[in-house]
Amino acid sequence: MDSQVLPLFPKGARVNDSNHLEIGGIDVVQLAAEHGTPLYVFDEQTLRDQCRLFLQEFTTRYPSIRVLYASKAFLSRPIARIIAEEGLGLDVVSGGELAIAQSAKVPPGMVYFHGNNKSAEELRMAVRWNIGRVVVDNFHELDLLHTIAKEIKRVQPILLRISPGVDPHTHKHTTTGILDSKFGFALSNGQAEDAVQRAMAATNLDLKGLHIHLGSPIYETDPYREGIHVAMEFAAAMRQRHGLTLEEFSPGGGFPIQYTVGQPPPPLADHAQAITEAVSDCAKEHGLAQPLVTIEPGRAIVGRAGVALYTVGAIKDIPGVRKYVSVDGGMGDNIRPAIYGSRYEAMVAGRAISEDVETVTIAGKFCESGDVLIRDITLPKVTPGDVIAIPASGAYCLPMASNYNSTPRPAILLINDGHARVIRRRETFDDLMQWDVD
Amino acid sequence: MDSQVLPLFPKGARVNDSNHLEIGGIDVVQLAAEHGTPLYVFDEQTLRDQCRLFLQEFTTRYPSIRVLYASKAFLSRPIARIIAEEGLGLDVVSGGELAIAQSAKVPPGMVYFHGNNKSAEELRMAVRWNIGRVVVDNFHELDLLHTIAKEIKRVQPILLRISPGVDPHTHKHTTTGILDSKFGFALSNGQAEDAVQRAMAATNLDLKGLHIHLGSPIYETDPYREGIHVAMEFAAAMRQRHGLTLEEFSPGGGFPIQYTVGQPPPPLADHAQAITEAVSDCAKEHGLAQPLVTIEPGRAIVGRAGVALYTVGAIKDIPGVRKYVSVDGGMGDNIRPAIYGSRYEAMVAGRAISEDVETVTIAGKFCESGDVLIRDITLPKVTPGDVIAIPASGAYCLPMASNYNSTPRPAILLINDGHARVIRRRETFDDLMQWDVD
Repeated sequence: MDSQVLPLFPKGARVNDSNHLEIGGIDVVQLAAEHGTPLYVFDEQTLRDQCRLFLQEFTTRYPSIRVLYASKAFLSRPIARIIAEEGLGLDVVSGGELAIAQSAKVPPGMVYFHGNNKSAEELRMAVRWNIGRVVVDNFHELDLLHTIAKEIKRVQPILLRISPGVDPHTHKHTTTGILDSKFGFALSNGQAEDAVQRAMAATNLDLKGLHIHLGSPIYETDPYREGIHVAMEFAAAMRQRHGLTLEEFSPGGGFPIQYTVGQPPPPLADHAQAITEAVSDCAKEHGLAQPLVTIEPGRAIVGRAGVALYTVGAIKDIPGVRKYVSVDGGMGDNIRPAIYGSRYEAMVAGRAISEDVETVTIAGKFCESGDVLIRDITLPKVTPGDVIAIPASGAYCLPMASNYNSTPRPAILLINDGHARVIRRRETFDDLMQWDVD
Repeated sequence: MDSQVLPLFPKGARVNDSNHLEIGGIDVVQLAAEHGTPLYVFDEQTLRDQCRLFLQEFTTRYPSIRVLYASKAFLSRPIARIIAEEGLGLDVVSGGELAIAQSAKVPPGMVYFHGNNKSAEELRMAVRWNIGRVVVDNFHELDLLHTIAKEIKRVQPILLRISPGVDPHTHKHTTTGILDSKFGFALSNGQAEDAVQRAMAATNLDLKGLHIHLGSPIYETDPYREGIHVAMEFAAAMRQRHGLTLEEFSPGGGFPIQYTVGQPPPPLADHAQAITEAVSDCAKEHGLAQPLVTIEPGRAIVGRAGVALYTVGAIKDIPGVRKYVSVDGGMGDNIRPAIYGSRYEAMVAGRAISEDVETVTIAGKFCESGDVLIRDITLPKVTPGDVIAIPASGAYCLPMASNYNSTPRPAILLINDGHARVIRRRETFDDLMQWDVD
């Protein structure tokens, strides 16, 4: 079983001579002993390789590609620097993400600002910084941004986020491109066309093109084809009716990763092929020039690079019912199982391969029955003190981490070729009280 | 409609002459203007009144009562002080909550330590501090705590958490007293009896009694009666078979509050009557002395006292489908709608009563479709800049708040009789990066 789970971990993960899991050339049991748990470990090489893979798979298939990392999957200053070094830009969704991008000295032109409810302060911050694009979501924002751009005396390049009415068959919480969505201008009711006209008429806005985002994660390639088809047809109509030049088009993100042995995603080449082919075909069909294509992977860049490490504490065996193995983290650092019903695999880091297995449920330590990380997983028999490693934990775990139960959030390590360094220190009890005013 | 929602807000909430919502004698629109939004406001009088109500409803019905506030509902140093001033103790579930209790100088004897996976460090911290009780959840903990108590040369008073096998008919994430639970020693398979014997035999543990917790929130009183019946019957059997004296018994917490107009909970008197009567009846039936009864309200102490304030930004009308009103907070500060499907009411603070209403969906600003605070609610017509006030937001919102989308967490105010003071300052963009190591 373990050999099937190993490929879900960062590249180069292996079982060493001590039968321990090794990541980035470092024994995971040793990492846990040295830095404590819960601990999140990111493998730098996997992170960089994923950046390169996206650039390669898309640029070899299409003349003009821009890859933006969707920061909300996991952002910190050290991570932003690595991403920028690899030539990717950032898709940010808040003033906070913008502030981190600024602090990491990401070039402003490579930063795109998304979101359904950007505030005036956030838009001002973005325009003043010469941000690459504001991806305008709604009429309120269109007017607000125009007013702000005028105030600041800049012409702000924008994309319009349109809602193509395509269902990507993912969790309802993360389905975004349907008509009944808080995101974007709907095509079906004329709002998208109205937005194009208003954006083109706005003196301090420069409408570069269109953006769609269908949801995440999307395992199939057909929803992309369908969304692109709908959007490009709309672009052609807008050229005809209003003289829009589609300089840029973004099919968004949503690229999947492998969370479980049973659900491998297609190779990225399939998505790259489907997307670039669809854009090229549609451009040709409608007599449009090939636009710059901007893609926004988040999970697919950072997901596999990250591993969560926990230590086993109490074990509760209810014969004939279930065996609960409690670890020292849980819904405070990874709320995905509770909120989306997400499924994960795991390995026992210090007993990687063993014939002596049993089925257990990995519970968190948070005081809530819903705090179960993995229900019914077959693992080598565990005892208190064992380290559990959960792969594919790089995306949407730490960014949604809370201090529930007044629990300090975990430390984060970056590892590369046998070296580990702390890129986020563990929170302390004092940290929990730092904002309190007596 | 508004007059129906008003009672869900803190006591004394009213609509003032400007047709604005007023809480604790302060105009809510003014609070939002002064302190910015998202903002959480706690009414001190409501908080204190709820503490007093619990003491009163239980002590008038039963000779020996201890009320412990379940800190996980919302804990901060200023809140802990108020609770302790009112004569309540604290139920804590982690080293972090323990640290806050210590920092607030809550008397150690009035603090109980819960949780399914307490670490050795946490138990050591608790025993050294002379904590009132450790509520032991499992055999691993029983052994670990005994070892630690011996080391520290103390006799630690404990309760045993038993799992009575009663379904309280609440959300599966918060149902805790059934056999298939990560919490407690099951009665049905003999583990609870085994635990009693082992605890009684442990030289450095002093078994004071038993604890059950069924789930939360529990609107009915029958599950309490049923749980108490099962637990007391077990206690009687343990006296007979092993000489256990039940000095103390806790039926846990789970007391409901009113979140929506359509689901008012029964008055606390009903729960108090059911619980005290059941304990007295069972004690009599089994010839036991009336034990000290410890109850653990969390939500019911702090829930109604807290109000969330947001400002409206973008409004997106999809004719015939839905009107999305986006506010400046959302799942980052209140994840309950996304995780439990929780339902809330709301008021437009600056237009409290109006005939000109419409049905809207209140969406958050987080970049995820699941970030919807209230689906399809009828409100006075809103425009950007309006302040939305959501009642019953004092429990389980801020404790589960994250920095998702790199969003700083809200400020918290304590208000009382016309005065407001900041008890937690708003996080800043710099705060988000404070743990990063370059």
